[in-house]
Amino acid sequence: MTRLDSKNRTREIDAALRRRARQVIPGGMYGHLSANNLPPEYPQFYSRSEGSRVWDVDGNEYLDLMCSFGPVILGHKHPKVEAAVAAQFAKGDTQAGPAPCMVELAELLVDRVSHADWAMFAKNGSDANTVSLMIARAATGRNKVLAARGAYHGSAPWSTPVMIGVTPEDRASVQYYTFNDLASVEEAVERAAGDLAAIIVSPFKHDAGFDQELVDPAFARGLRELCDRNGAALVLDEVRAGFRLNHGGSWETVGVEPDLSAWSKAIANGYALAAVLGSAQYSEAASRIFVTGSFWFQAVPMAAAVATITALREESAVDSMLQRGAKLRDGIEDQARSAGVPIRQTGPVQLPNLRFLGDENFERSRLFSGACAAGGLIVHPRHNWFVSAALTDDDVDDALAVTEAAFAAVREQFNGA
Amino acid sequence: MTRLDSKNRTREIDAALRRRARQVIPGGMYGHLSANNLPPEYPQFYSRSEGSRVWDVDGNEYLDLMCSFGPVILGHKHPKVEAAVAAQFAKGDTQAGPAPCMVELAELLVDRVSHADWAMFAKNGSDANTVSLMIARAATGRNKVLAARGAYHGSAPWSTPVMIGVTPEDRASVQYYTFNDLASVEEAVERAAGDLAAIIVSPFKHDAGFDQELVDPAFARGLRELCDRNGAALVLDEVRAGFRLNHGGSWETVGVEPDLSAWSKAIANGYALAAVLGSAQYSEAASRIFVTGSFWFQAVPMAAAVATITALREESAVDSMLQRGAKLRDGIEDQARSAGVPIRQTGPVQLPNLRFLGDENFERSRLFSGACAAGGLIVHPRHNWFVSAALTDDDVDDALAVTEAAFAAVREQFNGA
Repeated sequence: MTRLDSKNRTREIDAALRRRARQVIPGGMYGHLSANNLPPEYPQFYSRSEGSRVWDVDGNEYLDLMCSFGPVILGHKHPKVEAAVAAQFAKGDTQAGPAPCMVELAELLVDRVSHADWAMFAKNGSDANTVSLMIARAATGRNKVLAARGAYHGSAPWSTPVMIGVTPEDRASVQYYTFNDLASVEEAVERAAGDLAAIIVSPFKHDAGFDQELVDPAFARGLRELCDRNGAALVLDEVRAGFRLNHGGSWETVGVEPDLSAWSKAIANGYALAAVLGSAQYSEAASRIFVTGSFWFQAVPMAAAVATITALREESAVDSMLQRGAKLRDGIEDQARSAGVPIRQTGPVQLPNLRFLGDENFERSRLFSGACAAGGLIVHPRHNWFVSAALTDDDVDDALAVTEAAFAAVREQFNGA
Repeated sequence: MTRLDSKNRTREIDAALRRRARQVIPGGMYGHLSANNLPPEYPQFYSRSEGSRVWDVDGNEYLDLMCSFGPVILGHKHPKVEAAVAAQFAKGDTQAGPAPCMVELAELLVDRVSHADWAMFAKNGSDANTVSLMIARAATGRNKVLAARGAYHGSAPWSTPVMIGVTPEDRASVQYYTFNDLASVEEAVERAAGDLAAIIVSPFKHDAGFDQELVDPAFARGLRELCDRNGAALVLDEVRAGFRLNHGGSWETVGVEPDLSAWSKAIANGYALAAVLGSAQYSEAASRIFVTGSFWFQAVPMAAAVATITALREESAVDSMLQRGAKLRDGIEDQARSAGVPIRQTGPVQLPNLRFLGDENFERSRLFSGACAAGGLIVHPRHNWFVSAALTDDDVDDALAVTEAAFAAVREQFNGA
């Protein structure tokens, strides 16, 4: 790895690809990896990834603090994961039925995640959340689900944050509460009036564009009690946070066990896999619903997941992410203070979130993140970032060298105003 | 390849894995690859796949006429696809953004599928169908969708064939017509009363457990006219049939173009990918909805799709599947006649469907398919089979040697009754 260098960064190949993409992809790109809403210093297309680094199609190197929005938890191309992948690939991937590693993975997850007695697998985090709610409905014979206002649980019609192409009926069974506000949940439970199937919640509040908020343990316990009292399922959406906070479930340190949990992203270090984990009580309902997908039984992502989950604990990945995340947060805090740029950093250091105070239209964060991209650091102006276990102390120093210049740019642009 | 051999087939390792699976997977297995509802001669777990053959965990070899329910269209481990996969893997898969092959694939699909001006990608066939309907709703500002009664469009709450864990609201915007019955569509359009967003239809009727039915060209034209007259989108669900009937869209030979089409399964020869293709008129709506997934931008499946679609035409895969499928159908027809066992084979020969007449409870088809599995041939008792381009004339002879014995078993069991 070379030190990041902001000189002579061109993006001509990227620009040419964007022109071609605009001809054959609606809007030129879509979804969470679209560069359309990012500052112009970001590339759209990437050519190569390794460890903590990624390279765009013009050969520019970046330190990657987004990790593809979470999946890459051990760093790109982790040797043990890639070895497991190669071994399973040599045998088969999409076959006439599942491979033995499906059973091995289910056993491993049941061993690692304390509330889990069983596992089912899918492809998208959206799949895992939707299937969890279907199981809750099958088990309870009820329809209504409570979700936190503003929480992201995927882009299915019932969950996408943009109400375009969505029918009123898609949301008719979802009612909303405020994260960490138990009274608002109690009100929503009353509105559900005996038809409550489930409460879905994230391990902490990680709504894009807002300060993150750790869960109040009393709130988590209150949700558990409300579910127990009303015979509803508590569903923990681990898609974004899973395995970055803990080697088991994210609320095991809080002391609250969900009935069902939905996993994806980091579970297989970038290979396409999602999982629903559940307690024994929900197994029979899970066996009655019909859900499936053409690629839900692929062996390679399951072998990758076994290797990923094993390596995470062997390599004390959570500790590593905690240490590097803390060093990054402290460094950014110092830089912002020195620059006289008021910021707030919130949430777990493994999923860093940086907000500029008084930055209603994200102008400071856009300037900052654009300057980071220009300097060779991939972060995001509105969404939390992701630390991987591949991040070294030197990487954090590299990142801080870039953020220091980015804070200077923010100070220059805004502090005079 | 050895000739298939039914002697000394044990399934002890499979049985042990099933016992372990029952401890950690609801019902022991779920979804379309579950062996729970198959005759006991089928294995549940597979260890290896190559070309037209698969091996179970006990080392038994099978000729594979299910192709993982469609994805494997060029045969397992097709050299050109695997080479493209290895080359992209060496660079990156789940990265900070898409790779150039995403643009290449979108361009290739727009070139091959005549109605398509643009492409979007996802993971599941369910995703592609759901996203198509979201785009139709966004474009029209309306809610209602018409689908053929009994058609399978995935296992999302709006589409799963089992109404467990599903709310009434999940289906409130779907109304049903009868395939190939234009009057029933016209009635459904009237019921939609000006709120019609889309009509979704499969290229032919391929409902599991029923005779298949090719589309009546007048019906296809009638759907097109109804959509035009009512300002609704015609959505063709190509997930199961796509690329087995034609190197472009399945209705290009019928002369009817949909507005949107949903693809998955065979698009990347087993790698996890789905696509929505659309005409220019729907591009703006497609750019306004918010849909995404953690793995929707993976580069490897897209590189695999480019290689698959290219190889399909270079190797005249459709012709090859037509020839081998016809030979298989003719051979089965002769065997059934000789055995005095009345059957009906329906639909395209590339997606064979065999039904035993008078077999209301699928007893004959279960006996037949169980005997096939015991003899080393993977077919399905209720669902259509899938021919791949890897199938050779010798493979068809091997298959027919197994089916001949299976017909004899059916005759022995049922013809005396």
